[in-house]
Amino acid sequence: MSKLHASLFYHATVSEIFSDQALVRYLLQVEVALAHAEAQVGVIPYQAAQIIQQVVHDQGIHAFDFEQLYSCSAVAGNIAIPFVQQLTAAVKQVDPAAASYVHWGASSQDILDTACILQARDAFHVVVQQLQHAYCICLNLARQYREQIMIGRLESQHALPVSFGYKAARWASSLRRDLDRLTEIKARIFSAQLGGSVGTLATLQDQATAVLVAFAQQLELAAPSCSWHSERDRMVEMASLLGIIVGNMGKMAQDWSLLMQPEIDELTQPMSQANGAAWNSPHQHESVASAAILTAAQRVPLLICSLYQGLAQAHERSLSHWQLEWLAIPEIFKLCSGALMHGIDVLQGLKPHTMQMFANIEISHGLMMAETVINALTPQIGRSVAEDQVRRCCQQAKIEHKHLKMLILHCETLRPYLSAAQIDALFQPENHLGNMQTQINAVLNEAKLSVPMKPTLISNHGC
Amino acid sequence: MSKLHASLFYHATVSEIFSDQALVRYLLQVEVALAHAEAQVGVIPYQAAQIIQQVVHDQGIHAFDFEQLYSCSAVAGNIAIPFVQQLTAAVKQVDPAAASYVHWGASSQDILDTACILQARDAFHVVVQQLQHAYCICLNLARQYREQIMIGRLESQHALPVSFGYKAARWASSLRRDLDRLTEIKARIFSAQLGGSVGTLATLQDQATAVLVAFAQQLELAAPSCSWHSERDRMVEMASLLGIIVGNMGKMAQDWSLLMQPEIDELTQPMSQANGAAWNSPHQHESVASAAILTAAQRVPLLICSLYQGLAQAHERSLSHWQLEWLAIPEIFKLCSGALMHGIDVLQGLKPHTMQMFANIEISHGLMMAETVINALTPQIGRSVAEDQVRRCCQQAKIEHKHLKMLILHCETLRPYLSAAQIDALFQPENHLGNMQTQINAVLNEAKLSVPMKPTLISNHGC
Amino acid sequence: MSKLHASLFYHATVSEIFSDQALVRYLLQVEVALAHAEAQVGVIPYQAAQIIQQVVHDQGIHAFDFEQLYSCSAVAGNIAIPFVQQLTAAVKQVDPAAASYVHWGASSQDILDTACILQARDAFHVVVQQLQHAYCICLNLARQYREQIMIGRLESQHALPVSFGYKAARWASSLRRDLDRLTEIKARIFSAQLGGSVGTLATLQDQATAVLVAFAQQLELAAPSCSWHSERDRMVEMASLLGIIVGNMGKMAQDWSLLMQPEIDELTQPMSQANGAAWNSPHQHESVASAAILTAAQRVPLLICSLYQGLAQAHERSLSHWQLEWLAIPEIFKLCSGALMHGIDVLQGLKPHTMQMFANIEISHGLMMAETVINALTPQIGRSVAEDQVRRCCQQAKIEHKHLKMLILHCETLRPYLSAAQIDALFQPENHLGNMQTQINAVLNEAKLSVPMKPTLISNHGC
Amino acid sequence: MSKLHASLFYHATVSEIFSDQALVRYLLQVEVALAHAEAQVGVIPYQAAQIIQQVVHDQGIHAFDFEQLYSCSAVAGNIAIPFVQQLTAAVKQVDPAAASYVHWGASSQDILDTACILQARDAFHVVVQQLQHAYCICLNLARQYREQIMIGRLESQHALPVSFGYKAARWASSLRRDLDRLTEIKARIFSAQLGGSVGTLATLQDQATAVLVAFAQQLELAAPSCSWHSERDRMVEMASLLGIIVGNMGKMAQDWSLLMQPEIDELTQPMSQANGAAWNSPHQHESVASAAILTAAQRVPLLICSLYQGLAQAHERSLSHWQLEWLAIPEIFKLCSGALMHGIDVLQGLKPHTMQMFANIEISHGLMMAETVINALTPQIGRSVAEDQVRRCCQQAKIEHKHLKMLILHCETLRPYLSAAQIDALFQPENHLGNMQTQINAVLNEAKLSVPMKPTLISNHGC
Repeated sequence: MSKLHASLFYHATVSEIFSDQALVRYLLQVEVALAHAEAQVGVIPYQAAQIIQQVVHDQGIHAFDFEQLYSCSAVAGNIAIPFVQQLTAAVKQVDPAAASYVHWGASSQDILDTACILQARDAFHVVVQQLQHAYCICLNLARQYREQIMIGRLESQHALPVSFGYKAARWASSLRRDLDRLTEIKARIFSAQLGGSVGTLATLQDQATAVLVAFAQQLELAAPSCSWHSERDRMVEMASLLGIIVGNMGKMAQDWSLLMQPEIDELTQPMSQANGAAWNSPHQHESVASAAILTAAQRVPLLICSLYQGLAQAHERSLSHWQLEWLAIPEIFKLCSGALMHGIDVLQGLKPHTMQMFANIEISHGLMMAETVINALTPQIGRSVAEDQVRRCCQQAKIEHKHLKMLILHCETLRPYLSAAQIDALFQPENHLGNMQTQINAVLNEAKLSVPMKPTLISNHGC
Repeated sequence: MSKLHASLFYHATVSEIFSDQALVRYLLQVEVALAHAEAQVGVIPYQAAQIIQQVVHDQGIHAFDFEQLYSCSAVAGNIAIPFVQQLTAAVKQVDPAAASYVHWGASSQDILDTACILQARDAFHVVVQQLQHAYCICLNLARQYREQIMIGRLESQHALPVSFGYKAARWASSLRRDLDRLTEIKARIFSAQLGGSVGTLATLQDQATAVLVAFAQQLELAAPSCSWHSERDRMVEMASLLGIIVGNMGKMAQDWSLLMQPEIDELTQPMSQANGAAWNSPHQHESVASAAILTAAQRVPLLICSLYQGLAQAHERSLSHWQLEWLAIPEIFKLCSGALMHGIDVLQGLKPHTMQMFANIEISHGLMMAETVINALTPQIGRSVAEDQVRRCCQQAKIEHKHLKMLILHCETLRPYLSAAQIDALFQPENHLGNMQTQINAVLNEAKLSVPMKPTLISNHGC
Repeated sequence: MSKLHASLFYHATVSEIFSDQALVRYLLQVEVALAHAEAQVGVIPYQAAQIIQQVVHDQGIHAFDFEQLYSCSAVAGNIAIPFVQQLTAAVKQVDPAAASYVHWGASSQDILDTACILQARDAFHVVVQQLQHAYCICLNLARQYREQIMIGRLESQHALPVSFGYKAARWASSLRRDLDRLTEIKARIFSAQLGGSVGTLATLQDQATAVLVAFAQQLELAAPSCSWHSERDRMVEMASLLGIIVGNMGKMAQDWSLLMQPEIDELTQPMSQANGAAWNSPHQHESVASAAILTAAQRVPLLICSLYQGLAQAHERSLSHWQLEWLAIPEIFKLCSGALMHGIDVLQGLKPHTMQMFANIEISHGLMMAETVINALTPQIGRSVAEDQVRRCCQQAKIEHKHLKMLILHCETLRPYLSAAQIDALFQPENHLGNMQTQINAVLNEAKLSVPMKPTLISNHGC
Repeated sequence: MSKLHASLFYHATVSEIFSDQALVRYLLQVEVALAHAEAQVGVIPYQAAQIIQQVVHDQGIHAFDFEQLYSCSAVAGNIAIPFVQQLTAAVKQVDPAAASYVHWGASSQDILDTACILQARDAFHVVVQQLQHAYCICLNLARQYREQIMIGRLESQHALPVSFGYKAARWASSLRRDLDRLTEIKARIFSAQLGGSVGTLATLQDQATAVLVAFAQQLELAAPSCSWHSERDRMVEMASLLGIIVGNMGKMAQDWSLLMQPEIDELTQPMSQANGAAWNSPHQHESVASAAILTAAQRVPLLICSLYQGLAQAHERSLSHWQLEWLAIPEIFKLCSGALMHGIDVLQGLKPHTMQMFANIEISHGLMMAETVINALTPQIGRSVAEDQVRRCCQQAKIEHKHLKMLILHCETLRPYLSAAQIDALFQPENHLGNMQTQINAVLNEAKLSVPMKPTLISNHGC
């Protein structure tokens, strides 16, 4: 993606994790871990591992000619080949003997896959912090606005009342499930890859498994029971969770942008100070954040789709499926953390417009309570009579632009069965909230019982 | 999908679970559970629940005019509305009073979502059996053919040797992860939905939560902390797992179809007896199964994509996102179980062609061992000299169509460093299998330690 | 798709064209055309062709055991094989000699592809009529409501005024382009397929081309320069146009559903008489049509995607890519004509709410005219001073909930430069319509100059 | 996308057209054209337009602080806002009065859309040259290898013979259709966008249409009948063609990679000189090009899908759909021209292996001719007897690994009906090519009749 759009859609820290420079840094970390693991098991001289580490430590990514990396990938077909060539050359300048042991026994895919897992782990660290932050704010909104009545909407029409806090509790609940999901899968997805060209780590012969275990240990990754060069379900699983998170944020962005329409105007978000563009469109709510989130919510699923389709790999490495990951995984992470960034930004500033929420409820002149009235009448006059009568009142209400409550009050057929006070109560939104508060409590309790958060984060955001 | 293609792509039992008749049956099960839960809590008369159950028991789907259901969905916008109308009418004929309590307090989405979860649970039952069956066969293939050497292939070219059993072990490993995944998520995804129109179960007032709990208990589903009418992550999570399973089968189908190409011919699959079409194309391997699986592996991800995109729901129910589930979820289940069905069929008959596997290894005249020879020479003459010399031999081998082993044997520069016996050993495929057997053991042990299978299945398939 | 959803998403006529029975009927038409073409060229006896035609004429689809077709496709891998077997058997009963010439020289793909093209042509006939009908109504709306001012909206916020007729003119313009597109591509896409197994029509030897030409002529299709069994761009091109049409309808449905939100309420659509569900949610606008269209607009692109991906066929027929067409093409046609059906239904009943449109314009208290005021001031006081002053007024307007016009009127700095009348004019929406009427004229003229419509349709819909 | 992958997947010239710097350059071109058009019509002073042009001419993109552009897009929501701010500032430094007229009356979307169309036109210029080049080479291959017999393959199995030239002719035919498609649509897609905020060009009042026409003329674009800010079918149409081209190249890459498998080995491609990586995997054919093309053929359709889904815009500008274009369109162009670049590279070096093609035909021991033999026998002994006998011979051939010709020759039942010479002829591949040469001629003639190429290109590539 053009840098022109990066700040709009991506989170800077996660973008940095997936930058070209960072990828080389992760690849170096993998090569050093490999050399150490091999030295530890006795596959390569301890001295060689030391020198490789030294070169990496001293020169880092400065040992690399990035322009040459860029142009070589077109010829080599992947970035690992020119990377290893340059690293070997750098080590060779210090110690030609050690250079022979660079990347010993490993394949391009081993180091690219393991580097990708390390990037993913670091990026998930950011994503989890963001998730926890967003979760905290949603919980707070749920607590704070649990009594703030607003209309619930089905298929963009008015239905029955909810509260703004209830909306937030349901948002929170989805984020909580996302946090649980990551807890469940992380042991499986954060796995090392080390199999040499066809998965058997042939060059290392009898020492292969010991090297794999040492390698994984160095990087604090799991050592998988077998190589997974062409069984990419871990990658898909990882991306799937990110896709669900983006979708959960997309749901919020839908709500926000619809509630910020000028005619509805139930939510406001403090205008970003920096937004120099907004002054001459002063009637516009801030919609940049929702736009960025909704764009991600539409695009990320398609990127994920390419990963699912890429599962049908051929043999020990497909001709073309692996490449789909190179293009999709970094962007999925960046768009996901970008969506969370925008989401947190909005959540922090979100203010319900109490007056407007009340006003909007009244727009439908009580018609939304038709079924409630019918339910109240059913035990006395039977459902079908109740339906007939109420339907008649509704039609009259629509034609004469009157409030349904008034028409029910003055309906001769229904008057014997409902007192004015009863009718009044039937039309009070707060009398039609069912178990909403119980649900909010359940969501808040879930958070208390096992909040998967670091104390620092909790104190920061006051969860 | 046309019935003309159904038997090719779908599994019959799972298709039946998602048939129109079955959906009505699941909806009836949900309505009966709802009535009982409400009677238990005291929301509706116990008598009404009894009559509703009786009507459902006596008439079942025969109470329904399906043609009318078909035509009404176009007007009502979903199938639940005409379904409830017909059910109410059927109950009314028996007891008008009871008819008033049909579907009491529930929304269309409550019963459609809960029915969908029940369908999913039953379909997963089939899918898990299929997965276990396929897993068992793969484990058996891994055991049986762990010594059956064949060439490993990267990017459709020859690389280093593996064994057919190793391939099967890696297939098994992916299926094992799928079984683990379902274990992890099932408590979360098999959740009841009961929230009335906007999630608050408004009609049931103080009794709402008690009814929800009783309802979930009746159906042996989890009672969620809050309604999830517009937080659809459970549906996506469910579909994601199915997508990974389909992809895992797709990987096998890729391997099979490529290995069954006549020039490669490393695998055979007993021709289906029923295949009347094949006799006059007698040179053709059976490719129907792979074609069906690969079609599913390409299509299912796109259907899943629609579910991810559908996460960005608006308000308490979106205008259009929920519908994407109706179209995608049944087909994803049917294609997934269809792919497993075909996969099991192939796996059961799969026979490696030992002779051809050996013959194909030799096709590259030992060139694949070039790096191995270099590695063997590196400690003695340094990597760069070794590379130069071996490269020269490789070029000669290609030009003169000779075996690399012969050229190495006769290379004056290299002769001092490698004996004929050493060279011979270097070119033996079985000397280049690294930790392959250890990996196969790990996969087999994983199965022993915690095989998530029913005894009956184990005994059936001899795992 | 389940029949339960078919009436909601599909158009009945187009569904019928793609029904199982109709497919068999199209296949029969293809086989008869093939037999006649071959008899004409002298490849098969004239008598054989006559008998084949007679059997098809007499028995039609009643010659077929559909249950057997359903179950055989799973074994044969496609429906053509059991179809030809059953047809051959039916002919054999009448004349065993003629039976030998059924399907002579053709492949399964020849008859399935050609039948699909015939289905597509018939379905396009319906789609074009629908397009023309929708185009006509949009043109009429453009004419009728060209002066009906409403607010234009950017990113769900108010911008500057447009008219409802202008909206309709832009809808019309997109449908016009769709009609033009079909005109351009139809000669290319309506091509016969006849190549035998690998495209060379080997069985027919020297007579192959003559048979192809006669076959295409029989069916009034183009005879392609070469076979296209694995060059599927025609299929993609066809689907692409349908996808654009669905998207164009999706744009309208977005507008409708947003404008029918109760707080905005600028459009109404007469409630479907048949809609028994709506009475007890009387405050709800009819949203079924928009929901169905938007579902199609989200799903069809994914189905189309599978066709694009299917282009990368292997050899003379891919193992699995062709199948993606069987699953996607019928559904794309059905969803497209279903979306048009719903769209026409809404367009016919669409009524703008004049009063509400005026009321909504005023909601932003004139803030949308800020830039207009600045532009008017720029020539006199320079843009930067104008911006400063107007910005100040805007902020005051927002804080004090006053109309911007009042604040400009009372702004001492600006008073010298704008008279009250000028200010009044600046805030009249009808003074800010630019070349809107010219654009509407251009769209109407386009229709006059070369309306690609049949007279009957024009008279029917009064274009 | 990371620069690390850019050289592998993208074409440099097209990447340059869509670079950040180039986008700013195109935006400048649009602003200058706008200023001139407005001066010409008399909307802004001629002097102002002159100064704007002068500043752009003198400073170009050096007037821009790109870091600030990058960071501002996050706040402004699109890049046009900070771009216009910086341009205005640059003009202001030269002439404050002229600065007021920068971007006069236009919206962000006007200049971004028009710039995108200009980029598209320039990128299509490259794509068409590539298409013509690839078409030429395919035509040459068709001519050169029209007699080079090879086996045709269905579902990865052997079918009947074709020639390598025939394959190339069918590739050519698909590219020819792509060239025709562009010719058809270019007048429609290369349209200017100029509508101000809601499409009416409100600021320009009576002069709006004249400015639009002058603006379009300046840029040599069509002036559309109405604004198309939220009717994006042109963008989808453009991308669709690119998607078809990528898919057509994907078909070739499938063929190449499958035919380059070592066991099949029917094609070779001269190893790229630059490929330093290949020497130590000397048995590997060059597969980088096919991998890059197939990756594009899998990914581009998903990017296109986002554009189709983006058609369902809301109002005069959607909150989030337009953004999908920013992310997808540049990448679609870059991947398409990248696929063509790789495809041309391969096509230029492609060499069929005559000997191997002959050898592979014989692998199936004549079984592929079974149906041909049946057809030859049918007139004499009837199809069913012929089938029985030949089927028996086929089974024997498979079991005894004998050639079907030998078994037919020695079959007592069939001997009376076919002479040895006849049998020999039946098994000659060149006797089973049907109208293949006629088809090749048709493809070559199509090129002659109306080759849509520039003379320079024709002479370069010898078409």
